[in-house]
Amino acid sequence: MARRTGRRPGNPDTREAILGAARDAFAERGYDSASIRNIAARAEVDPALVHHYFGTKEQLFFATIQLPVNPGELLPRIAAGGRAEAGERLVRTFLQVWDSPVGSAGAALLRSAMSSELRARLLREFLTTQVLRRLLRMLDLDGTPDAPMRAALAATQMSGLAMMRYIIKLEPLASAPPETVVAAVGPTIQRYLTGDLPG
Amino acid sequence: MARRTGRRPGNPDTREAILGAARDAFAERGYDSASIRNIAARAEVDPALVHHYFGTKEQLFFATIQLPVNPGELLPRIAAGGRAEAGERLVRTFLQVWDSPVGSAGAALLRSAMSSELRARLLREFLTTQVLRRLLRMLDLDGTPDAPMRAALAATQMSGLAMMRYIIKLEPLASAPPETVVAAVGPTIQRYLTGDLPG
Repeated sequence: MARRTGRRPGNPDTREAILGAARDAFAERGYDSASIRNIAARAEVDPALVHHYFGTKEQLFFATIQLPVNPGELLPRIAAGGRAEAGERLVRTFLQVWDSPVGSAGAALLRSAMSSELRARLLREFLTTQVLRRLLRMLDLDGTPDAPMRAALAATQMSGLAMMRYIIKLEPLASAPPETVVAAVGPTIQRYLTGDLPG
Repeated sequence: MARRTGRRPGNPDTREAILGAARDAFAERGYDSASIRNIAARAEVDPALVHHYFGTKEQLFFATIQLPVNPGELLPRIAAGGRAEAGERLVRTFLQVWDSPVGSAGAALLRSAMSSELRARLLREFLTTQVLRRLLRMLDLDGTPDAPMRAALAATQMSGLAMMRYIIKLEPLASAPPETVVAAVGPTIQRYLTGDLPG
């Protein structure tokens, strides 16, 4: 039997055990508190093996939620240019990803997050630690007390846009050209991030 | 064996057959084109039996998606007072329903719509024919070409709010007092319904 090379395959049972332990750890302890060491102990493997199969903690986290894109590559695109029009850039970048073949993996991620409490927690951890917090920091918006609420409001609009355009396929939104959606929804995100919010 | 009275119980097999036929009909033909007669034919029962078990076509539709509230009772609350502040009233009414015990049925409806194409179509039909079209009409906003897009945009914001507040439970949004959410999200809905939208 030919032996496959490269890091990813490995022993499927071991990989699955590590992924299961990682899911539990990230959901229970949160991304920040979970550690490769703790995950390795849960899976009863050596921490070096976790690194060998999955790389960094961040890469392991993305593997647990089967993330199709790396927000670390997308967020700088949105942040470049500063706060002005960050809302439009966020919507535009989001639509580029979801309109691409990768979009179906995004839909699978949303569906799975709706289907169980553990998966919902993983998505929450992902949004909080990998997307919203980093975006706020890049835009220098992370210093104020209302920053987490601003980020959460942006998440409501973007998740609902994904659901209605790509999963429920509500017309005429589902067939609208991306720039029509950018022009309509961009100002909402801009207001949530930088506008006057009462309270 | 005690015989239960009232309309609802009936023969469970017949009820289920009618519900299954109704789901298929509403998803395939849409709410407007589906008829009690057609649904009865699919279920191989007399149309009178469909009326007997479920009442009107609208009531049958609500039963197929296990709708916990009747939008016909809620929409006039939102429309009363006219267009001004309709956005805030919509968000406030929505939160009142979702923050009540009925909210868990709303979450189940959203989850189920994410889980299959047929269920997604049913939610789309529900939103379009029972909520958005009626709301636009009540607010005298249904005459313009961009009315369907305005309604769809409002649906993105409200569905994402439900998902993040009640299912993903993203903080600080999940624990925020309703009026904080109304003040933040109301203006978004107001703009989608009555504001300047480019394009």
